[in-house]
Amino acid sequence: MKIEAILQETYNEVIGFENIGETASYIPELAGVDPDLFGVHISTLDGKSCGIGNYQEKFSIQSIAKTLSVTYAYQMLGDKIWEKVGVEPSGTAFNSLVQLEADYGKPRNPFLNAGAIVISDILISNLSNPKDDFLDFVRSIDDNNQIAYSRKIAQSEKEVGYRNIALCNFIKSFGLIDNEPSDVLDFYFTLCSIEMTCEELSRTFLYLSNNGISPKNNRELLTESQSKRVNALMQTCGFYDESGEFAFKVGLPGKSGVSGGIVAVHPDQYSIAVWSPRLNPKGNSYKGMKFLEAFTTKSRLSIF
Amino acid sequence: MKIEAILQETYNEVIGFENIGETASYIPELAGVDPDLFGVHISTLDGKSCGIGNYQEKFSIQSIAKTLSVTYAYQMLGDKIWEKVGVEPSGTAFNSLVQLEADYGKPRNPFLNAGAIVISDILISNLSNPKDDFLDFVRSIDDNNQIAYSRKIAQSEKEVGYRNIALCNFIKSFGLIDNEPSDVLDFYFTLCSIEMTCEELSRTFLYLSNNGISPKNNRELLTESQSKRVNALMQTCGFYDESGEFAFKVGLPGKSGVSGGIVAVHPDQYSIAVWSPRLNPKGNSYKGMKFLEAFTTKSRLSIF
Amino acid sequence: MKIEAILQETYNEVIGFENIGETASYIPELAGVDPDLFGVHISTLDGKSCGIGNYQEKFSIQSIAKTLSVTYAYQMLGDKIWEKVGVEPSGTAFNSLVQLEADYGKPRNPFLNAGAIVISDILISNLSNPKDDFLDFVRSIDDNNQIAYSRKIAQSEKEVGYRNIALCNFIKSFGLIDNEPSDVLDFYFTLCSIEMTCEELSRTFLYLSNNGISPKNNRELLTESQSKRVNALMQTCGFYDESGEFAFKVGLPGKSGVSGGIVAVHPDQYSIAVWSPRLNPKGNSYKGMKFLEAFTTKSRLSIF
Amino acid sequence: MKIEAILQETYNEVIGFENIGETASYIPELAGVDPDLFGVHISTLDGKSCGIGNYQEKFSIQSIAKTLSVTYAYQMLGDKIWEKVGVEPSGTAFNSLVQLEADYGKPRNPFLNAGAIVISDILISNLSNPKDDFLDFVRSIDDNNQIAYSRKIAQSEKEVGYRNIALCNFIKSFGLIDNEPSDVLDFYFTLCSIEMTCEELSRTFLYLSNNGISPKNNRELLTESQSKRVNALMQTCGFYDESGEFAFKVGLPGKSGVSGGIVAVHPDQYSIAVWSPRLNPKGNSYKGMKFLEAFTTKSRLSIF
Repeated sequence: MKIEAILQETYNEVIGFENIGETASYIPELAGVDPDLFGVHISTLDGKSCGIGNYQEKFSIQSIAKTLSVTYAYQMLGDKIWEKVGVEPSGTAFNSLVQLEADYGKPRNPFLNAGAIVISDILISNLSNPKDDFLDFVRSIDDNNQIAYSRKIAQSEKEVGYRNIALCNFIKSFGLIDNEPSDVLDFYFTLCSIEMTCEELSRTFLYLSNNGISPKNNRELLTESQSKRVNALMQTCGFYDESGEFAFKVGLPGKSGVSGGIVAVHPDQYSIAVWSPRLNPKGNSYKGMKFLEAFTTKSRLSIF
Repeated sequence: MKIEAILQETYNEVIGFENIGETASYIPELAGVDPDLFGVHISTLDGKSCGIGNYQEKFSIQSIAKTLSVTYAYQMLGDKIWEKVGVEPSGTAFNSLVQLEADYGKPRNPFLNAGAIVISDILISNLSNPKDDFLDFVRSIDDNNQIAYSRKIAQSEKEVGYRNIALCNFIKSFGLIDNEPSDVLDFYFTLCSIEMTCEELSRTFLYLSNNGISPKNNRELLTESQSKRVNALMQTCGFYDESGEFAFKVGLPGKSGVSGGIVAVHPDQYSIAVWSPRLNPKGNSYKGMKFLEAFTTKSRLSIF
Repeated sequence: MKIEAILQETYNEVIGFENIGETASYIPELAGVDPDLFGVHISTLDGKSCGIGNYQEKFSIQSIAKTLSVTYAYQMLGDKIWEKVGVEPSGTAFNSLVQLEADYGKPRNPFLNAGAIVISDILISNLSNPKDDFLDFVRSIDDNNQIAYSRKIAQSEKEVGYRNIALCNFIKSFGLIDNEPSDVLDFYFTLCSIEMTCEELSRTFLYLSNNGISPKNNRELLTESQSKRVNALMQTCGFYDESGEFAFKVGLPGKSGVSGGIVAVHPDQYSIAVWSPRLNPKGNSYKGMKFLEAFTTKSRLSIF
Repeated sequence: MKIEAILQETYNEVIGFENIGETASYIPELAGVDPDLFGVHISTLDGKSCGIGNYQEKFSIQSIAKTLSVTYAYQMLGDKIWEKVGVEPSGTAFNSLVQLEADYGKPRNPFLNAGAIVISDILISNLSNPKDDFLDFVRSIDDNNQIAYSRKIAQSEKEVGYRNIALCNFIKSFGLIDNEPSDVLDFYFTLCSIEMTCEELSRTFLYLSNNGISPKNNRELLTESQSKRVNALMQTCGFYDESGEFAFKVGLPGKSGVSGGIVAVHPDQYSIAVWSPRLNPKGNSYKGMKFLEAFTTKSRLSIF
């Protein structure tokens, strides 16, 4: 069966599932999104592109952006970034402070909020115009200037971001943040507010299926080894304390966001994005997980 | 370059590395092994077999046996086993009790000692002659009757196994162990004492590269989906709190043992075993990790 | 108002309170006790003695015995015992293993199960006939040969004592237990099974109101300084993670047991025992706490 | 021996001890204090007053002020304050975030930084001019208008108070802080900056020896029961994870500050203050602890 057919068949099946869970309530702007939107899009290295449902609707990609920020920092600074952030799954929730205290402020991995905040600090220390430069970087991956920040969402998040303020100041108290916490968080909330459609998302992430090279413009975003390592990180840490479950059931490196988006990549083959705003108790898209599980089962295309 | 050549080249390179770390000191019988033995063996699905160094020397595979016990339990009982043990990385050491207390006795995954003890309990509840039946199962994978337990090592471990006695009784206090702790531990220590050579190890684990089917005798040990899931579990949890590092640097599902053995599988391609008794601070073979990192880099054959 | 009158008045008031909570269910023999028994007894240094309700009924004093075992070990070995067990409140439940792991097996204080197990190990290393010697010691305090162990309760506890087996083996794995875990636990369960009436309990504990000297026979059980320190320990640690609450509401050094007994002492004045088997969620006697709170409020005799 | 003589004798003894430890380095203004200053002062309920050494030197009392803020909040709002902060020792350091996460943001007691921050929030919600009103309250206890804040120290602390910013925002994320974190922290840093001499400190705290009544002006600051409870809290929680040790060795309710001050009270008898800036590893005055241990041993006046 062709991949477009499998996608359609999986979509038809999953659309019928009861859609349970709530949208993220702690960010007011996210809470207002229609919880029953559902879109998927796949881009393959051999040039296929196929979307179903609300795959052309923009949503803020939230924590999915952490993969892009770690890519950018890794590209600029290489393995030096691992001095300030680890590569291990944490076994704890995305916003936990517990492990930080035991580890003297060093986040276990760059996909926890704590780790992404450290990466944000690294980026603003190394960029002239952090927000502009980062957006340019993201746009350059697939030559797509339609990608933009949502000021409203960044602002909404900032107003209630007490937990992230706590995380940033906590890490700063251990000396692992160089810039002012308010500057770091302003950048962090902004990068999480990037909006994309499922189509843009699957196209943008194709470089991770392609050993770090953008198939659109042949730009090397990461070396082959770095690209494999970012995939490994997504596999072991991309879903917080549900990373094991995602590897177990879906079997692809992936990254989720609290807006209900998930992107997953199959090295040497494809990148797939799915969006459904209702979240399971671990903060990952309920239907998105179900869809990807069904899709890799049907397509028999997990990496394992 | 052919895979045998890459293996040899990697071996030549890594043999020259300084060999640091100590052998596991807490099991008297293991502490006595020559710490500088070093062997590797690869078996490929297309029938190649190649070993270098001390690859025909027997050693007790220790925690590597946990993959075999979870395979056997999964085969017999299916997804029911996940009611008693999770599929998440724990972020803690192999013998930690901390997370167990927070999780009411349910181990995070079957590769932690706690999880393997729960799997042992499940097995003895479901087998007539647990030790004999389990050994028969292991032997049947590659039709190899040379595989046997080491009574001396099982006994040695039992005499000093206070931490594991603690783990087993702790879980029992939450009601998640059905049998007597002393029976469960007797079985657990016995299965960890299984001795194999690198060659036997890589051959035995080939079923995980082959979607659950033994290439030797076509016996289905696991369904395709189950086989992928065991690989996913090894990827996210096989190296305790160094699992992220192994995925990051090596990029293959694998499992280590405190005797200094590591086995890793590349789905649809090969299974590779390496043995070097000196351990790094996380309890994984120092040189074994180095070897596999260099091997997947050279062969460019990581799953990511 | 005379102390007997206050006792009576408090009793009358508290007997009318709704009696909530359950008896300890995990020790079969304790679960069978009539949950609505209620007795109190006070012994003063100036020779008064007054009991009300079921104050002449025997019950196993359980963890209250930990004060007697620490007294005995302190008497024999002096400050050396604090090398193996601390003097800090733990902030955790009586049977928690979490802190032990962070503290390399050293219990925070001798009133946690872990700490009392370490004290038990110390005692059996230093006594010829541990059980007989300890019972003789307890009997000698108030020249009372009616005090005895309950073999039935010790046995009952032993059969289900998985958590304590876990604790003991866990500490042993850190090298802080010298004897065989099964011997240590046999002694530990036995000493917890000592049976006394409220009257015997308040009389036995009078030495802690009297700077370490038994008022009955002038035997010095502890030096003045040691006696004050045992009281300080009961004040900060005697009620596990409800120690602060007990200091706050009752304001006397005291020790509770899972059988529903509590003993408290007012230095230079009196010792008081109360028994009511229903426990609050922290494992301390619901009505016993209420009684002592009302009693110290009415008598205005807290140490603070 | 008279109490003045015991004080002198103890002083002579302890002044000769090696003075180890460092001053608090994280607050720049505190780090600059002469580390070898040493003063003590006792005030008794029967009117004696005696000081030795640098007892008339001002220092910022830091966390000792937490006793005064909890007194003020308790006076105004009664037991309602315990809905937002507990009365249990935590077993963790003064600035730990770990327990907060497990307890959904509710601090274990008002003497942890977290707890004092919650009390600060309560005070600013209930005062028209929080800083002025609080200072007036403190001054009114002993009719002493010489007591004042140190703006320099408050400012110094604010500039590096990342850990406290983290704590405050973390608690706010659980909904247990009503005001803006920056306002709460401004008040918190200010109240910790109050400067007193040992003499002023021992006089100010005399109300806690006197059942809540100022002996200077007969003002009721707390009811008798409340006063006992604040003492109980100081006993179980006043020295963070060294509270047990202080109860064990000194045997008086007390409160320490990171500037090297300690105040302790003996109910119905006296209040004593000691100041020596070098801190032990738990953050309490090294020589202050030694002095009080020797003093209560010599005077035989512990509460136990």
